[in-house]
Amino acid sequence: MGNSLGKLFIITSFGESHGRCVGITIDGCPTGLPITEEDIQREVDKRKPGVSMAATKRAEEDKVEILSGIFNGITTGAPICLVIWNRDIDSSEYEKARFLPRPGHADYTAFMKYGGFNDFRGGGRFSGRITASFVMAGAIAKKLLNLIGIEVLAHTIEIGGVKAEPKGFDEIKENIQKNPIKCADLKAAEAMAKAIEKVKEEGDSLGGIIEGIALNIPVGLGEPVFGTLEGDLAKALFAIPAVKGVEFGSGFSAARKRGSENNDLFTIRNGKIVTVTNNAGGILGGISNGMPIVVRVAIKPTSSIAKSQQTVNIKDMENASLTVKGRHDVCIVPRAVAVVESMMAVTLCDFAMRAELIPRVIK
Amino acid sequence: MGNSLGKLFIITSFGESHGRCVGITIDGCPTGLPITEEDIQREVDKRKPGVSMAATKRAEEDKVEILSGIFNGITTGAPICLVIWNRDIDSSEYEKARFLPRPGHADYTAFMKYGGFNDFRGGGRFSGRITASFVMAGAIAKKLLNLIGIEVLAHTIEIGGVKAEPKGFDEIKENIQKNPIKCADLKAAEAMAKAIEKVKEEGDSLGGIIEGIALNIPVGLGEPVFGTLEGDLAKALFAIPAVKGVEFGSGFSAARKRGSENNDLFTIRNGKIVTVTNNAGGILGGISNGMPIVVRVAIKPTSSIAKSQQTVNIKDMENASLTVKGRHDVCIVPRAVAVVESMMAVTLCDFAMRAELIPRVIK
Amino acid sequence: MGNSLGKLFIITSFGESHGRCVGITIDGCPTGLPITEEDIQREVDKRKPGVSMAATKRAEEDKVEILSGIFNGITTGAPICLVIWNRDIDSSEYEKARFLPRPGHADYTAFMKYGGFNDFRGGGRFSGRITASFVMAGAIAKKLLNLIGIEVLAHTIEIGGVKAEPKGFDEIKENIQKNPIKCADLKAAEAMAKAIEKVKEEGDSLGGIIEGIALNIPVGLGEPVFGTLEGDLAKALFAIPAVKGVEFGSGFSAARKRGSENNDLFTIRNGKIVTVTNNAGGILGGISNGMPIVVRVAIKPTSSIAKSQQTVNIKDMENASLTVKGRHDVCIVPRAVAVVESMMAVTLCDFAMRAELIPRVIK
Amino acid sequence: MGNSLGKLFIITSFGESHGRCVGITIDGCPTGLPITEEDIQREVDKRKPGVSMAATKRAEEDKVEILSGIFNGITTGAPICLVIWNRDIDSSEYEKARFLPRPGHADYTAFMKYGGFNDFRGGGRFSGRITASFVMAGAIAKKLLNLIGIEVLAHTIEIGGVKAEPKGFDEIKENIQKNPIKCADLKAAEAMAKAIEKVKEEGDSLGGIIEGIALNIPVGLGEPVFGTLEGDLAKALFAIPAVKGVEFGSGFSAARKRGSENNDLFTIRNGKIVTVTNNAGGILGGISNGMPIVVRVAIKPTSSIAKSQQTVNIKDMENASLTVKGRHDVCIVPRAVAVVESMMAVTLCDFAMRAELIPRVIK
Repeated sequence: MGNSLGKLFIITSFGESHGRCVGITIDGCPTGLPITEEDIQREVDKRKPGVSMAATKRAEEDKVEILSGIFNGITTGAPICLVIWNRDIDSSEYEKARFLPRPGHADYTAFMKYGGFNDFRGGGRFSGRITASFVMAGAIAKKLLNLIGIEVLAHTIEIGGVKAEPKGFDEIKENIQKNPIKCADLKAAEAMAKAIEKVKEEGDSLGGIIEGIALNIPVGLGEPVFGTLEGDLAKALFAIPAVKGVEFGSGFSAARKRGSENNDLFTIRNGKIVTVTNNAGGILGGISNGMPIVVRVAIKPTSSIAKSQQTVNIKDMENASLTVKGRHDVCIVPRAVAVVESMMAVTLCDFAMRAELIPRVIK
Repeated sequence: MGNSLGKLFIITSFGESHGRCVGITIDGCPTGLPITEEDIQREVDKRKPGVSMAATKRAEEDKVEILSGIFNGITTGAPICLVIWNRDIDSSEYEKARFLPRPGHADYTAFMKYGGFNDFRGGGRFSGRITASFVMAGAIAKKLLNLIGIEVLAHTIEIGGVKAEPKGFDEIKENIQKNPIKCADLKAAEAMAKAIEKVKEEGDSLGGIIEGIALNIPVGLGEPVFGTLEGDLAKALFAIPAVKGVEFGSGFSAARKRGSENNDLFTIRNGKIVTVTNNAGGILGGISNGMPIVVRVAIKPTSSIAKSQQTVNIKDMENASLTVKGRHDVCIVPRAVAVVESMMAVTLCDFAMRAELIPRVIK
Repeated sequence: MGNSLGKLFIITSFGESHGRCVGITIDGCPTGLPITEEDIQREVDKRKPGVSMAATKRAEEDKVEILSGIFNGITTGAPICLVIWNRDIDSSEYEKARFLPRPGHADYTAFMKYGGFNDFRGGGRFSGRITASFVMAGAIAKKLLNLIGIEVLAHTIEIGGVKAEPKGFDEIKENIQKNPIKCADLKAAEAMAKAIEKVKEEGDSLGGIIEGIALNIPVGLGEPVFGTLEGDLAKALFAIPAVKGVEFGSGFSAARKRGSENNDLFTIRNGKIVTVTNNAGGILGGISNGMPIVVRVAIKPTSSIAKSQQTVNIKDMENASLTVKGRHDVCIVPRAVAVVESMMAVTLCDFAMRAELIPRVIK
Repeated sequence: MGNSLGKLFIITSFGESHGRCVGITIDGCPTGLPITEEDIQREVDKRKPGVSMAATKRAEEDKVEILSGIFNGITTGAPICLVIWNRDIDSSEYEKARFLPRPGHADYTAFMKYGGFNDFRGGGRFSGRITASFVMAGAIAKKLLNLIGIEVLAHTIEIGGVKAEPKGFDEIKENIQKNPIKCADLKAAEAMAKAIEKVKEEGDSLGGIIEGIALNIPVGLGEPVFGTLEGDLAKALFAIPAVKGVEFGSGFSAARKRGSENNDLFTIRNGKIVTVTNNAGGILGGISNGMPIVVRVAIKPTSSIAKSQQTVNIKDMENASLTVKGRHDVCIVPRAVAVVESMMAVTLCDFAMRAELIPRVIK
């Protein structure tokens, strides 16, 4: 259990890193939406390693295939099943280190929870590769959100301590295309790339922070008290491996502000109620207030590192040491940008459907 | 919709700040658990304003009443319904300011989402008072967790920029009883109290950070990929009004660490696998690893402040100014401590039941 | 668990027969619906014992009370909590026979499932009294359905082997008001009443069949393959104690027909596609086809009878005999009519909301 | 939405009759269960047309393929995805009759609900072929139930008015293997086969009744009031196309009995509490009582018949006539036997897991 998400736009993830495929079913997608394998492929390609140094050597084609729910290029109302077949698999390293859990990785908890029966090859269900299926679902969610004008965007704002300067939405959109780091501050992007390069040489890894933004959000998304917009977005974002923190608007810094500083004053602009600032990150009382939704996600450094680390042999119950071989990203932040975007889109799409903003049949 | 939480231990919140009552139903509670109104009352009392200066002037008795599901002091397997009747109600200020949404509060989004039909008195469903029902559910969840040795504790670690020094679990447990701020660092507690006092005089408000800890967690709680322990805890915690950020273990600071620093090395201690550090906050791959669960929650400053603020009249669609009267906490952090504890307990109880650690019939 | 029903219009039942109250919460009810305690009371009164001979001697006032979710007589979007307080309680007989399960009743299974901790007084959660809470939810569902022209009606078509002649919808609607049996065939109603009277004298009980009809159903309600209209209606109807069979349209008799007889031919009438017959009971492929929904529900004879019956003493594990005292209906069919109507309304309302036919805010 | 079923053992159906495949994902299956493609294939083969005259001419190989969740022949705890690829597809007849809905079939409702975008070829999602995916899930559920001794069996008890004599469980189990009708009364089976043969010649179709039995059921399965064993079994069984009625134990005939006749008396046999009769079909108050669960399912005659029938052209909105070509079963009852068995198994498995009778890790 636990592999489905959503109430009206329901995604169910399946597949393993070194199994037959990674896949996703989407139940509840409105009927009449034009969508092709190419549309989905385009999104999945955003998750591709964009910069040689930062990313895994695994060279997957990651070719999207539609198994059901789309007929003549249009959604039918039936559940959509999408898969990416696994091809470039080398599980040898994993076989060798099977009983040596990588520090910081899910190897140990997965072994314990599933009684040692889990498919450990390539991290199995705990591989970043699983997020390719999130992106497939995100591709469809984005198409649906576009119908009502909602745009979702994520970008790298920090890696290894290097922080990006804040930029406007359009500049972000444009600049993240220009560098493999997906950072809107081009100078910072360069510094981040260098930091990654350096750490790679040392056999170590880096984390960072991704910011997600959603524009043109109507007022009223969110179902408090337990279906808040923050709560459901956070739940979706914590599904991304390596995410250890989620904050909205002024987030943790709000804890240091006074009410008079943090409250966003209301005003009328062009006949519409808006707030002067956006410390709330577009959400008040768990409900969207019409301002941009702003969320930041902390990504821990990749746990698989080339340095020797202390671990235990879980079979023999004795201390051991481990040098991870396999093929791993030194910093997954740039590739996770597309995943953050996708999980935001999937969640917002579900909320938009609950608010009856996306019709069940698109005409 | 959105007022239920949980899969096997399912809570449904109802009630309004100035309506008849606030209440909660709990479906799925195991049978055979001894529980009295006093047991629940004790937890609810922890939410009471402990320090005159910091808290609302509303003087509710907050008397817990069991309506169903408990017979002869023992849970029956039937849904448990618990209520606290509202008695000390003064809605006059709210009537006056009905169309003037408080900056930073849910007034505006609630009005828009519910077409102006929402019960606005005292914030209605968006009042902190609703969390008294969370604490009632938490009281039962804690009792169940105690059966399997799990202990949940929350404490204030920061208010208005004043930070507490880290303390050990036992010291935290003892010290938070000694001050109304619920801070384990007694010196910091005093400084926090002073900061609150000062801000109160200025008609302003403060936020802060609460840390939640859960001890004696078995390995294996959590249902990835979408039912991660982090994700479901975060979803539950964001149900608390004013929470704007949630992080686990090293959280946002992990973004600045290297893998070699952030990875928790495994070792064997007393025949058990443990980690040397706990940057993971007790969770790897969305599953508990047996170490203490550590979560931090950012609480924004109370939005209702005595200072005049700019707002709009939503009925007449014109700019306006507002000085909130009503009765409000200058800093809700100390009172929210019990709520954080409760939402953690409710969520962990649900996960423990999914892992079949709590029997359906207790004997 | 198991005490909630519905996806968007979600009801959660609580309370016991001899506890404090029976109640229900409704989460997801659209905002802006005018509803008063009187509106709900009127529906609950339909469940009242209408004919002295057929019904329990328990004389409950069954007074509906709104605890939350309705403000100034209008739904607010917050969860609605409704209760009926229990007043006329005499649990003495139940105490005496606590370990002697009534044949045909849930006494035995409840004892075993809940480890003997269940509230056995008056049947606890398994009392027909619980269905008063279903009727409260049904009252609101009917109001919502009325907004889109859907009308739901149930009537007695068989008791103790006496069958009613088929009648048209309007005649049913009128005639069921005229007799306590709620049977549209007035002659049959009389025969049924006599049959009940006779069986009562013998200390025995009777069952029967109730037919539910829903008119003005739009085409397209139902979410196959697992959310069929038949499946969800059946699930809701089996929640009524004593229901042992559910069939739609020609139902079990379809098993004896040929396709050419059972297929409902399509034709155009007044510019609308209709079927010439309605063997499908208004449902094709799990989806409404626009014809009236017709469902029949088999009610077993009341299990509590005044005759001596063989049972076992579950405590001492020995054979025993039992003569049920308490206060019981000889035939619950007439009172169950309102409950069948309510469960149909609740389910159809949920489907209508899934199909976005009822707006989230009513203006 | 609506394509998932279950709470802890959750199946999600996807695929179309003439699309790429029919498939199912299973989330929540315990870890450590040995299962092979052959195990599943064996169950799927039971759905194969066993008697030329009764069944479709479509000659699918129906080869089961495991896409995820099983590693080295053992379940891993990850979601299991199973598919059967479609190969022998001829959609030509469907293209021709696209706007002429078959009377009694879902063509009309599907067209209307999904705005004409549904994949109509071969009935799309409304084809009996979809039930092959139910049987795949059933194969796994049965394996799990076997671990705790539960056996599920279905058999044909009526076709075209020919009724089978009641038989004991062992005789049923043996005899249904001997004839393609899957009827335990071999003489009746012959008569049924003849009836089918005759109707086939006439270009017509037949329905019938299937009985499902589950043995060795522990006391206590079921989650009243809304998660009754009857309600959830019925919901699952109504997912099978053509099912129009479901009854338990004495079912509709209970409506004609007196309490003294219908009540199952309790007695002690071999130190266990049992009932002397089983009119309750093994379920009291929505909870299993330890006796065999007995359910009967009414199957309507196949709607696709070779006779000319009146219909409408939904595009041109005019009356029309239709002679269904395609390839269809004259009577689906024998093939539906395996499906009834599967839906029972899936539902009972879910309930057994909720009752914590099947461990999450099998050792």
